[in-house]
Amino acid sequence: MLTSILPVRIYYEDTDAGGVVYYANYLKFFERGRTEFLREFDIQQDTLLQDNIAFVVKKVDMDCIKSARFNQLLSIETEVSSQRKASLMFTQQIFNENRELLCKADTLIACVNLQKMKPIAIPTEIIEVITRAR
Amino acid sequence: MLTSILPVRIYYEDTDAGGVVYYANYLKFFERGRTEFLREFDIQQDTLLQDNIAFVVKKVDMDCIKSARFNQLLSIETEVSSQRKASLMFTQQIFNENRELLCKADTLIACVNLQKMKPIAIPTEIIEVITRAR
Amino acid sequence: MLTSILPVRIYYEDTDAGGVVYYANYLKFFERGRTEFLREFDIQQDTLLQDNIAFVVKKVDMDCIKSARFNQLLSIETEVSSQRKASLMFTQQIFNENRELLCKADTLIACVNLQKMKPIAIPTEIIEVITRAR
Amino acid sequence: MLTSILPVRIYYEDTDAGGVVYYANYLKFFERGRTEFLREFDIQQDTLLQDNIAFVVKKVDMDCIKSARFNQLLSIETEVSSQRKASLMFTQQIFNENRELLCKADTLIACVNLQKMKPIAIPTEIIEVITRAR
Repeated sequence: MLTSILPVRIYYEDTDAGGVVYYANYLKFFERGRTEFLREFDIQQDTLLQDNIAFVVKKVDMDCIKSARFNQLLSIETEVSSQRKASLMFTQQIFNENRELLCKADTLIACVNLQKMKPIAIPTEIIEVITRAR
Repeated sequence: MLTSILPVRIYYEDTDAGGVVYYANYLKFFERGRTEFLREFDIQQDTLLQDNIAFVVKKVDMDCIKSARFNQLLSIETEVSSQRKASLMFTQQIFNENRELLCKADTLIACVNLQKMKPIAIPTEIIEVITRAR
Repeated sequence: MLTSILPVRIYYEDTDAGGVVYYANYLKFFERGRTEFLREFDIQQDTLLQDNIAFVVKKVDMDCIKSARFNQLLSIETEVSSQRKASLMFTQQIFNENRELLCKADTLIACVNLQKMKPIAIPTEIIEVITRAR
Repeated sequence: MLTSILPVRIYYEDTDAGGVVYYANYLKFFERGRTEFLREFDIQQDTLLQDNIAFVVKKVDMDCIKSARFNQLLSIETEVSSQRKASLMFTQQIFNENRELLCKADTLIACVNLQKMKPIAIPTEIIEVITRAR
């Protein structure tokens, strides 16, 4: 199974007055990780968007274990844990520089036609590269 | 059981190039809803913060059912569905103007001492008002 | 001259690890203020967007005088200070509850056709209501 | 004069329903650029923060020339254009992959004691490395 690894630096923009990363921002990091996972297979989401195809999030189960802090360099690790005709399940983990697990999430993504906002089958060329990766 | 209702307008800042609300921003709306829920009981989080007490998110289970769009006026509905000594479970729903359910989430919040980043018992005065509300 | 006033509550999402509002977020508040200014004249930007018309920011001159803090209730005050065929200059100020000036900005907005990304004349019905307001 | 260059990828989080980068997010990119500029001189802002020292933005003059789009890889270029005892002026530019100038800004940064929210002299070791860079 292929794991994509993305380094993410924590800037002021990511933190809140509690001195740690604001919880909604982990979802941004997870989304960056999924985008880079797809890019490693040469799947460019701006090209998909021109064809009115987008991946939209249907479900997120996130566990926040330990807070990330300003200026840390995190590692976002991304895998596809299951796939169906019109959806993908991503399993992702965020580690700090000491390999402590900070946060993890399972995210269900559906492929949709953006104009009709209807689920559609994931394009075959994407299914193929992801199947090969698993 | 008391339900707190917060209206939230969707601005450009909340949307993405897909033309809908960016998924991480629902977590911002849920957090605003929890803040206003607490404020209805006169619990001010800036006062808590001065005492190094904060509520941090430990788990989020979010279902995205239908996309919210630019300029819509949403309704964030917030309840406490269970409580323990050092944690609260919030159950929240987001509706559009036609009362369609767009998004829902269960969020587990822990009370922590921010300096030590250790769980602590929720202050008694907060436990009391929340117990009365349920 | 008409001034539109919008109350904005500061949530955790708006702050950073310095304990104050993150500077980019003032631009969000200014944009909310301009949106509500336009809405007071019944100008709905989602309707404009369907016609591929949008107001885009060309210039911002912002002065940050005093930091806004978590949980404060700010007041965003918005006026049109000058107007041309294809652009508007907004002058805006942000005050805290004690009427201290926290931040101010002049923002030049151009009316564009989003598909061609070309400047276009502001629709006459919008010019008319804004002229009446000044 | 030393110029620091930071590549920044545009993700969904950065865009809005107009299909382009939301204007407030350029301020995030500029701030990332300044952070990496300082890091190149081994100035770590989390260490400063522990001593209650922070750089806060006092003025921003931003020109938005051309919109950045989803999935583009931008280049953030950062220089210190002038310096005083307690403040720095940064001049920054954002280019796309075709070396088109998208956005530029002059940002005045003051060094403050965060607890007192008072301006203080920039620490000598920082003044020294920045003087050497100019």
